[in-house]
Amino acid sequence: MWSYENYSAIAIQTSTLLASITRKGVALNRVFLRALAKAVPREALITRDEAMRPFETDGLTAKRELPGAVVLADSVELIQRVLRLCKTHGVPVVARGAGTGLSGGARPIQEGVLLSTSRMSRIIEIDADNRSARVEPGVTNLAVSEAARPHGLYYAPDPSSQLACSIGGNLAENAGGVHCLKYGLTVHNVTGLIFVTIDGDVIELGGARLESPGYDLLALLHGSEGMLGVIVEARLRLLPKPPHKCVLLAGFPEIGAAARAVNRIIASGVIPAGLEMMDKLAIHAAEDFSRAGYPLDVEAILLVELDGAREEVAEVQRKVKELLVAEGAARLTTATEPEAMQRLWRGRKAAFPAMGKLAPDYYCMDGTIPRGQLEQVLTRIQVLSKQYGLQVANVFHAGDGNLHPLILYDAARDRDLEKAEALGGEILEACIKAGGTITGEHGVGVEKLDQMCTQFSAAEIAQFHALKKAFDPHGLLNPGKAVPTLARCSELGGMHVHGGRLPHPELDRL
Amino acid sequence: MWSYENYSAIAIQTSTLLASITRKGVALNRVFLRALAKAVPREALITRDEAMRPFETDGLTAKRELPGAVVLADSVELIQRVLRLCKTHGVPVVARGAGTGLSGGARPIQEGVLLSTSRMSRIIEIDADNRSARVEPGVTNLAVSEAARPHGLYYAPDPSSQLACSIGGNLAENAGGVHCLKYGLTVHNVTGLIFVTIDGDVIELGGARLESPGYDLLALLHGSEGMLGVIVEARLRLLPKPPHKCVLLAGFPEIGAAARAVNRIIASGVIPAGLEMMDKLAIHAAEDFSRAGYPLDVEAILLVELDGAREEVAEVQRKVKELLVAEGAARLTTATEPEAMQRLWRGRKAAFPAMGKLAPDYYCMDGTIPRGQLEQVLTRIQVLSKQYGLQVANVFHAGDGNLHPLILYDAARDRDLEKAEALGGEILEACIKAGGTITGEHGVGVEKLDQMCTQFSAAEIAQFHALKKAFDPHGLLNPGKAVPTLARCSELGGMHVHGGRLPHPELDRL
Repeated sequence: MWSYENYSAIAIQTSTLLASITRKGVALNRVFLRALAKAVPREALITRDEAMRPFETDGLTAKRELPGAVVLADSVELIQRVLRLCKTHGVPVVARGAGTGLSGGARPIQEGVLLSTSRMSRIIEIDADNRSARVEPGVTNLAVSEAARPHGLYYAPDPSSQLACSIGGNLAENAGGVHCLKYGLTVHNVTGLIFVTIDGDVIELGGARLESPGYDLLALLHGSEGMLGVIVEARLRLLPKPPHKCVLLAGFPEIGAAARAVNRIIASGVIPAGLEMMDKLAIHAAEDFSRAGYPLDVEAILLVELDGAREEVAEVQRKVKELLVAEGAARLTTATEPEAMQRLWRGRKAAFPAMGKLAPDYYCMDGTIPRGQLEQVLTRIQVLSKQYGLQVANVFHAGDGNLHPLILYDAARDRDLEKAEALGGEILEACIKAGGTITGEHGVGVEKLDQMCTQFSAAEIAQFHALKKAFDPHGLLNPGKAVPTLARCSELGGMHVHGGRLPHPELDRL
Repeated sequence: MWSYENYSAIAIQTSTLLASITRKGVALNRVFLRALAKAVPREALITRDEAMRPFETDGLTAKRELPGAVVLADSVELIQRVLRLCKTHGVPVVARGAGTGLSGGARPIQEGVLLSTSRMSRIIEIDADNRSARVEPGVTNLAVSEAARPHGLYYAPDPSSQLACSIGGNLAENAGGVHCLKYGLTVHNVTGLIFVTIDGDVIELGGARLESPGYDLLALLHGSEGMLGVIVEARLRLLPKPPHKCVLLAGFPEIGAAARAVNRIIASGVIPAGLEMMDKLAIHAAEDFSRAGYPLDVEAILLVELDGAREEVAEVQRKVKELLVAEGAARLTTATEPEAMQRLWRGRKAAFPAMGKLAPDYYCMDGTIPRGQLEQVLTRIQVLSKQYGLQVANVFHAGDGNLHPLILYDAARDRDLEKAEALGGEILEACIKAGGTITGEHGVGVEKLDQMCTQFSAAEIAQFHALKKAFDPHGLLNPGKAVPTLARCSELGGMHVHGGRLPHPELDRL
């Protein structure tokens, strides 16, 4: 894992700073860059192309763009200064955490400043009595749980990138993870935050308690992808470590049976800590890579994690086993020792990197559907996969209906990327048709702008724009992300119309 | 409990409808009232003073105002029509559920329409497999749990008015209840909603799943007190009934010991389903009224409800008892049978009506403080009570630090109401000083407008206004509630300034 620390060193080395500014004149004008160089300490500013290279993309690596300048912020005050300056000069700002996001929410723009918060990585306070942590946005997700561990506590949301991804990015994209079925997404685990507006004002939302007066801007900032303000502090809810755990592995002779078992478990009243499904392609790749001990003669597996008091876990475990068997599960394994549980999870966690053996590139989708539709949508994905001639592996959070189809392709092959993107678009539209949504935990970013036109009506998109304007009237915060223009939707012809009403004529101007 | 059905009858009887419209010309102009009478079926429109009397206040009964007209909406389409008409004529609209709110959020205004949603009381769907209910806004809180009961499910938020209060109002004020310590406020138990904008557009938010793309307007609408739109449908999360429960009652020789016991329980990792405190005045009044069997020789009692699997409850019960005893609890009672548990809760539930024996009127406050500050703030309330010469009883959600000081007064006595309000204001300011907030579950309404100036900075209040404008540019939805003007704050001199910065000069215009 690389760190920004390297880049500050590079930045200091660049005695040719002003020369580089001159070269960047195309994207950002000289007057602004001079003002920026004056406002930002030298070691916090990067403007040379080579040094900015690591920032040209986030986790959605297919398309790249160099920013106009990079600021490595280390204080709220510096962020206020940069935002005020950008406002004055009308320059766009893209905020960035660790850059692990998968939907392109932190993709920079050439005409703008990339504002990194990863140097702000202090854990300000662990308040064990109130089970609360106050952290800066650059703290990694895992670092919070590490800091809470001596108190028997942890931070529940656990995206697979948790070793690298930062809390600021988690909030901006409303990140999830394996355990969000039981413990919720980021928005359900944050009780307060502080953000800086484009005017440089500091706004504090929520606190250590459940309720706060005034409009609920706290949830609004979650998943807002840096388009309403820049988050500079968060207060996270910590949970006590569950005293007992177990993990069940069940293999199924067909994918439909696994899907039905998922529905049976949830309908029975059990809320597993995690409930994951993998299809045959994913099982084989993961097993080959990680030797987790997965059965290879099945069409799908389920991994079910249960947690709670010892007796409760034992009772629920019996119940879940019965339900799995009733749906035809074979090869039932139960792990209760830490090592054995880790082994079972190892395959699931290795599934994404394991795809490297199957194809040079993969495109990870993130749609959510009602659990009852799992079988139908998975079948539809198989049909689409054949139609496009691209393999699709499925590894996903079955319990909350959050699909992660991995479309395998080869970027070096002509038109493969375009085909993968088109197939991805069709999968997302199948999710919407099934009553689902185009994102479960990765956000919209630049990736799913077109599908937003299918998901929402013109009035709804217009309301999003009006709201954005209330925070950022000149559209300087992360422009072009998350919410498409109505013109774009109308060109696509995909605008969804609620209840048979045509969109308001006056909305067309937006 | 009275129902709006009576009033529709009254409305139909009024053959003098047009005459009454003429009489109301002072508050609402004739042109608008004619248009309204044309747009709204006769049995859904009330304009006679006598028939509008029941609507002149919500649960904050101290101040009354007759609306200009009352519409009893029975469909989304009618609500769209009324809102479009109000927009065209520039007439304000106050939405109202069951009118049980305690902060005056549904108080009507003479120049506006009161839009009641209580006739929209259908439970559209109980989806037991996905543990979800779709309901209209006029459904009462308790009716949802009643409908879910045959499936072994229930709706967790349980404000004390649950027999009467409606889901629409619960959402508008983000209602809580005894069990929100473990199960969250309304916002944590709603996964989707549909609302109508002032333009008459229908906007759908969230759904049956955790995540939705776009800005998180779902939480934003919670607690927005009818100022952003009118909620016409909600999708509620249902929970499986916990298999076992028990209730502990503990008496304490001093209030500080009870407060410390609360902190010990939470810090130990236990999350009780409910954790309530009552002080001496409240205990005596409640016992006198309900014969719940509370000890009368103590300064405070705690009621602790635990739920979960049988073995888990047994284990946690032992732990909690130890902690209670360690803080000096005497008179420890444990109830595990339904009847015995109900008896213990009966006193708590009767506490508010029981106040009637102590004084003709009471004013119920609703501040939230960090649990660690319970002792200090309760002491401060005692000092203020003596200073103002008004008795204060405390009955509250101790586990989440949500105070409900009941200020006893006699409205017939000169200046008693003013004194009660001033005392209430000082109590809320003590809550803010202790790091808390001015509302836990009742909302701001008209009651706590002044305290908003202490709670928030000018930049924060300005952001609230900008956001309001994004939904309702002409300020027609429930004007004058929840968010004070900056001018009002500046007159009070109470504007709080974050980080030593003065508010933006341009904000003064708001």
